Amino acid sequence: MHLPVDFYDGVAARLRSRLDDEGLDGVLVTHPADVAYLVGFFYAVTERPVYLWFGTDGARLCLVPELDREYAAAQGIHAEVGTYFEYPGVVTPEQHLAAELARRGLSAARVGVTGSLAHGSLERLRAVLPAVRWETTSAIASLRLVKQPAELVLHRQAAAICDEMLAAGRGLVEDAIASGRPLPTEGDLARHVIGYGTDAMYSRYDRVLYTTKLAGGLVYAGPNSAHPHGLPSRRRLERGDTVILSLGAAVLSRFVESERTFVIGEPSDEQQRYFAVTRRAQEVGTDAMTVGRTCASVNAECLDVIRDAGLGQRLRHRQGHGIGVAQHEAPWVEDGDPTVLAAGMVLSSEPGVYVPGHGGYRISDTVLVTDAVPERLTQYPRTLEENVIAA
Amino acid sequence: MHLPVDFYDGVAARLRSRLDDEGLDGVLVTHPADVAYLVGFFYAVTERPVYLWFGTDGARLCLVPELDREYAAAQGIHAEVGTYFEYPGVVTPEQHLAAELARRGLSAARVGVTGSLAHGSLERLRAVLPAVRWETTSAIASLRLVKQPAELVLHRQAAAICDEMLAAGRGLVEDAIASGRPLPTEGDLARHVIGYGTDAMYSRYDRVLYTTKLAGGLVYAGPNSAHPHGLPSRRRLERGDTVILSLGAAVLSRFVESERTFVIGEPSDEQQRYFAVTRRAQEVGTDAMTVGRTCASVNAECLDVIRDAGLGQRLRHRQGHGIGVAQHEAPWVEDGDPTVLAAGMVLSSEPGVYVPGHGGYRISDTVLVTDAVPERLTQYPRTLEENVIAA
Repeated sequence: MHLPVDFYDGVAARLRSRLDDEGLDGVLVTHPADVAYLVGFFYAVTERPVYLWFGTDGARLCLVPELDREYAAAQGIHAEVGTYFEYPGVVTPEQHLAAELARRGLSAARVGVTGSLAHGSLERLRAVLPAVRWETTSAIASLRLVKQPAELVLHRQAAAICDEMLAAGRGLVEDAIASGRPLPTEGDLARHVIGYGTDAMYSRYDRVLYTTKLAGGLVYAGPNSAHPHGLPSRRRLERGDTVILSLGAAVLSRFVESERTFVIGEPSDEQQRYFAVTRRAQEVGTDAMTVGRTCASVNAECLDVIRDAGLGQRLRHRQGHGIGVAQHEAPWVEDGDPTVLAAGMVLSSEPGVYVPGHGGYRISDTVLVTDAVPERLTQYPRTLEENVIAA
Repeated sequence: MHLPVDFYDGVAARLRSRLDDEGLDGVLVTHPADVAYLVGFFYAVTERPVYLWFGTDGARLCLVPELDREYAAAQGIHAEVGTYFEYPGVVTPEQHLAAELARRGLSAARVGVTGSLAHGSLERLRAVLPAVRWETTSAIASLRLVKQPAELVLHRQAAAICDEMLAAGRGLVEDAIASGRPLPTEGDLARHVIGYGTDAMYSRYDRVLYTTKLAGGLVYAGPNSAHPHGLPSRRRLERGDTVILSLGAAVLSRFVESERTFVIGEPSDEQQRYFAVTRRAQEVGTDAMTVGRTCASVNAECLDVIRDAGLGQRLRHRQGHGIGVAQHEAPWVEDGDPTVLAAGMVLSSEPGVYVPGHGGYRISDTVLVTDAVPERLTQYPRTLEENVIAA
């Protein structure tokens, strides 16, 4: 798992240009995903802040807690490294940062920060750097909208693993049925697919790095699947269940999601109907992810398939979201996001239908917007026939 | 996994009293751990905000995205539930919240927020509620400092599982040695112990809920163990290695940590020396966790053992931190925290010594401050003899 130095140089050049346009002297980067994106440093996130000063003049200084000093160097971080000892510190991390900025003549600079910065941290920064003009910038989020070719290689690798995780989950259920053993619980299935994905990462890649996780998954079946974001339970799967495997995987924190709805045994009329509507919405919505369309219009076209089928009351969420160094990131495939799609954006397409007491239906692919038709990076079969588990 | 209604009633009464003292009309709660603590709602965290209005008059209203509506009800959330459809929304979550507060006559209220609220979110709130007086409060963090008896039951259950996870990790290495198979990799070991902990949760508890995770672990060996927070790699363990298993587990999100340093095969003089100093520091530091001491003084006494042994250059972090609904929370057992210890606080005690190129040594227990001597909730053996894996 790695990205070439060219990637980081390119990102830095583009960010400098944006900061220049905004009249900023630099940006103080505080979100772990932004730090990973800009300088390739991946770390266990705690209350100890990491402050990356990214100057419009090209300076990159990453202030890390002492416990990450050698680790940052071992990762080949694309920045100079400074340290503070600990949190909260007799001399606080913010005081260390203020001293570094003062040393560089930046005590009254115009400094961008992202909206994700905790306001308590911003208050501490204002106290130690009273002359700095703090401005909220979305320059980094904008850069991250369009993925670079080197990143797409990683997204494709993650997609392959995520599809295999779906197959592994299905396999666990099939093996139980074939051998006459009790079906697994939701928790068993979650553990199994996450384990498969984790193992795949360690067996395929030399230096495994991540921001939040390598592989993750929510698994819910029967009535539990009507909760779109329910946590796995100890409920054992049953014949007749609708089962959602909602899986994610990331190579060097380039995420994908792949989600499928399975039915154990012969699907009922009700299951066939809900599945069919969900699948049609996902086809229509995915096909609509083309250059020049807005997120809002794509989402409306997708969800209209469900509304037009008389299931508007069963909607619980939008069509999808951007996906990159964070599992969920801009743009949002939702009515309130006017972002115009461009080639190189990577989006989830995951409409769903949820019937309290009965179950839920969601099919999700990770989709690359291209100059031609949208490309599904995840490719696990999507038809009901292919997602029935014989029992 | 559950807490009785008495717990939530007690927390509510104590928080109302604090808010009253601060002259606030209520607090807008936005951190998932605070939401879980105050009203017992556990959810998959995304960009979709959950806003819990906790009024000093006793009102509890939780605004959740539509996709969590039935899930919150199914969990028996101790609050009225309102919803907004999606993020970012044509009508934003903040506009929904503003309408709710207006309906309750709170458009010009004095409202507390925690320092963890993203400043971009606070900007959006200021825009839709321009007459509200926003004030940063640490009322909830203060409440969380001392654990309630019902929470300690959960911490003890988590401690038992975390100790078993250590034994499971050790067992994987011993089994490989006994059978002549290659030793596991760091990644193998991490997967194994996390899987053990996850399975234990699902087998012991009926309704498994969590904020961030059930069980987690960092595993690093040999030179990698010199990075106190390094991510597991595919490096295979070797005879002669120093190995750190840095594990965590949570029952209903009441966390513990249990960390041990193992040596594979006969320890060298160097290993014996570093282990002995670390262990002595952990004994001294843990014994010092008594009512009336300050965090800063305990930390100093603990780390002085390492400095007095001539290993001050090998320090990379403080003695420890508070632990509760979040794995790391106040108070901080560090020089910069003057908090006075009180009975019912739960702290990690985890000094370490790190030797670049050679390895790291850390021993951590989760410790309950009591009116008598400190009680270690985690009890895995700590001596070098007991932590040598024969090879």
